[in-house]
Amino acid sequence: MKKVSQQISVQAFAPATVANVGCGFDVLGFAIEGPGDLVTATFDDQPGLRIRSVKGENGRLPLEVKKNTAGLSALSLLHHTGWDLNRGICLDIEKRMPLGSGLGSSAASSVASVVAVNALIGSPLAKQMLLPFTVDGELAASGSAHADNVAASLLGGFVLVREHHPPDVISLPVPKELHCTIIHPHIEIETKNSRKILRKQILLENAVKQWANLGALVAAFYEEDYALLGRAVRDEVIEPVRSMLIPGFYQMQAAALKEGALGCSISGSGPSLFALSRSKSQAHRIGMKMGEVLKTLDLDFDLHISKINTIGAEVISEK
Amino acid sequence: MKKVSQQISVQAFAPATVANVGCGFDVLGFAIEGPGDLVTATFDDQPGLRIRSVKGENGRLPLEVKKNTAGLSALSLLHHTGWDLNRGICLDIEKRMPLGSGLGSSAASSVASVVAVNALIGSPLAKQMLLPFTVDGELAASGSAHADNVAASLLGGFVLVREHHPPDVISLPVPKELHCTIIHPHIEIETKNSRKILRKQILLENAVKQWANLGALVAAFYEEDYALLGRAVRDEVIEPVRSMLIPGFYQMQAAALKEGALGCSISGSGPSLFALSRSKSQAHRIGMKMGEVLKTLDLDFDLHISKINTIGAEVISEK
Repeated sequence: MKKVSQQISVQAFAPATVANVGCGFDVLGFAIEGPGDLVTATFDDQPGLRIRSVKGENGRLPLEVKKNTAGLSALSLLHHTGWDLNRGICLDIEKRMPLGSGLGSSAASSVASVVAVNALIGSPLAKQMLLPFTVDGELAASGSAHADNVAASLLGGFVLVREHHPPDVISLPVPKELHCTIIHPHIEIETKNSRKILRKQILLENAVKQWANLGALVAAFYEEDYALLGRAVRDEVIEPVRSMLIPGFYQMQAAALKEGALGCSISGSGPSLFALSRSKSQAHRIGMKMGEVLKTLDLDFDLHISKINTIGAEVISEK
Repeated sequence: MKKVSQQISVQAFAPATVANVGCGFDVLGFAIEGPGDLVTATFDDQPGLRIRSVKGENGRLPLEVKKNTAGLSALSLLHHTGWDLNRGICLDIEKRMPLGSGLGSSAASSVASVVAVNALIGSPLAKQMLLPFTVDGELAASGSAHADNVAASLLGGFVLVREHHPPDVISLPVPKELHCTIIHPHIEIETKNSRKILRKQILLENAVKQWANLGALVAAFYEEDYALLGRAVRDEVIEPVRSMLIPGFYQMQAAALKEGALGCSISGSGPSLFALSRSKSQAHRIGMKMGEVLKTLDLDFDLHISKINTIGAEVISEK
């Protein structure tokens, strides 16, 4: 017999995420503290699943369930659990981060949505079991199944995605002192476009460097070896191409490294950059220096300093 | 003041190694128990460094110091330490594994040589500090600096090579139950040729799979997660090309996996194959099944079953 929740409304939060992390193109991600999406799932008077409201991002997200990753992921979960949609559910989405920033905006909506809906219908699945539905949502919305942002947002910490669909995801240890600087220049890059410019073939020589660095980065997480982490968190393959879309990229990276950042590269498909360091004050100084570069280019930006979010998505209120 | 050894002769052993290990082309290696090379370094009546004898492999290795990795590596070490070669040293090399087998034959000679010479001249350097000289030897002998076999032979266990020259090498944990089956078909492949057939460009898509697997494999070593190890220890990039040089490769691999091997691929540049499993008896059964394939092809082979060698190279006698 299914356990049925007494809640009539559940609100869940899912954090923003940094994907790729230098050498881990398409396979590595981590969650940050602060920005993210809130989704409230509420039993509805009418049957079916609907998106009642989207707050933030000037209503640019579609309300249509089948055009929105939050709706598509929730549908996938509801189908899987055999939920009878005669008892309808509506979703209210509140974006607390910008679309197209390279911080996994659609992933956070998708993750918050399944976490809220799962709790609303009586938590038939444990949190880590929700991952496939968020990947389904990304697949239906964008035509490609990528689990790096959704896995990081759902599980928190660093995640390594060995396979996307069905997901085979490994949670990696998070070195305790690690802090993150995120700078988001106010330009927009569509993930689709930033993927199109990548070459389908790469030099074997560069690929070898990349996988050497990724292996070393994973070891650095386990060993809590910050020096090794710094040597490994670099990108020989994607950054040289995608950085062309980000004004001032190399100046910002150089400023971050000069200020002592362990590493600095593009977050996801950009235009945000992330830098890793060992303290909040250093993360702050790094951000200031990166910001100075954007100021000389007359570009506005947001700056965000945080630790690594090790909790991932969570239910924050039920009533 | 330099510590000068009282020894007049030191014998060192360096184990055979498996490089690449599926997804770790050019960056991952491990040492095996049993086969390897012995090098004896002895103070000589005449000045300079010379190779007095090479036993095994029908004397196919050059006696000329500058054409032999064992000689070149020892020279590099002696130059670095400022050893005065008016007090000459001679080397006696005993090959206990076949050349061109894909088990790091030249690496083992090189490693045993520097370990023996270092001990003979009073151990000015700790073992892990000897790595650069063995890489120098490989570079001078073959024109390319590869640290994967030498690092595994010197240090034992699994090693990840983030950079070859100068070497940046990470020792990874060895899951306790791991056993290794090595099958060496009696055909010879020259490393140079097996490198020539590789394409300079690879698909980004395959590279991503490879680095996902390498990251997962490193995590599997730390987590002692044999199931993950089995999913990760595969090669999407090199094996499809190099396997063409090895008769019966895919049949042997299928036989190993059917018998429960966690993974099976080419050792180094071949023609030997390695398979990983969780017990000695299973490793043995896997070897038998692989051997049956070679028998149907009328090919002779050697079979070797061992644990992972976690000690690496060592001095075994001094007098």
